[in-house]
Amino acid sequence: MKIACVLGQGFEDSEFRVPYDRLKEEGYQVDIIGVKAGEELKGKKGKETVKAEKGIDQVKPDDYDALLIPGGQSPDHLRVDKRMVEFVKAFDKSGKLIAAVCHGPQLLIAAHLVKGRTLTAWQTIQDDLQQIGANVKDEPVVRDRNWITSRKPDDLKQFSDAIVDALEGGDEARAQRPSEPAAHP
Amino acid sequence: MKIACVLGQGFEDSEFRVPYDRLKEEGYQVDIIGVKAGEELKGKKGKETVKAEKGIDQVKPDDYDALLIPGGQSPDHLRVDKRMVEFVKAFDKSGKLIAAVCHGPQLLIAAHLVKGRTLTAWQTIQDDLQQIGANVKDEPVVRDRNWITSRKPDDLKQFSDAIVDALEGGDEARAQRPSEPAAHP
Repeated sequence: MKIACVLGQGFEDSEFRVPYDRLKEEGYQVDIIGVKAGEELKGKKGKETVKAEKGIDQVKPDDYDALLIPGGQSPDHLRVDKRMVEFVKAFDKSGKLIAAVCHGPQLLIAAHLVKGRTLTAWQTIQDDLQQIGANVKDEPVVRDRNWITSRKPDDLKQFSDAIVDALEGGDEARAQRPSEPAAHP
Repeated sequence: MKIACVLGQGFEDSEFRVPYDRLKEEGYQVDIIGVKAGEELKGKKGKETVKAEKGIDQVKPDDYDALLIPGGQSPDHLRVDKRMVEFVKAFDKSGKLIAAVCHGPQLLIAAHLVKGRTLTAWQTIQDDLQQIGANVKDEPVVRDRNWITSRKPDDLKQFSDAIVDALEGGDEARAQRPSEPAAHP
């Protein structure tokens, strides 16, 4: 399973690091995708500096099984680029997992996907979402079909757990699977 | 005439400096209002560092004739504070001039004021505004009743001109004044 992590300048350091490390530990390949390959991306707190392994022009949504969108200033920078917005749209169209935290849902807004969906985000973005017509919950993790969203760094453990669970076909996936016929006694 | 300038961490340096200096040159008093009095506020480009002259708990909208909202990361930080949001609401309720540039309109969104209004903003915020139901124009300066909005640092000269013009009772104010009876020949 390959996961695309879209990242831009000023990402919230831990919102990249915590789920990224967790997914790598679980054995998943996670590619850091920036606007431009090789660009040095700095976290807003100055704790993390990472290189964009691939540029958005080098990747196709078909290459990946899931999308991770860390927060901070990164999502607002990324959504200036129409290719990033199209990339996000394609994941939702094919029903692939999208995990977004904090300001991450700004990319979902830019992709015009949030109206009528249930999600959470950073508190100021929660209000944007509500006004656009999303069903907003102020909870650590919100799952809605192929979406997993969280609010802030404090939620990262639960956010990461939920992503791993979904990739393993848990929870929501289980709930949507037709129930097994009851075993005969 | 006294102008309130609301400012938080990571403001776009020139979007504070250019209109601030222009308004001071024109003889207006401009107070820098932060979440907390005395807080040192740094511009996102590291070019400007200013002190919050007053805290939001020390000021009343009645003390001021107009409101200036520079962009950058500042508006999203400020709108976390309900007192800031109420401060903005009060200016609009009394029909006082509100001038916002770039990400500045995020505070107008948080004050639930944008639906049906005509304005501009930074390109990513333009899309947020459209989805919320505002009438968005991609122009250097947009005037709608008591609002003056601009998109980015390149627009600052025109933005500042429009603010000064409005404070002097120009343009929109002139257009809304009942026409004089025609002079007899």
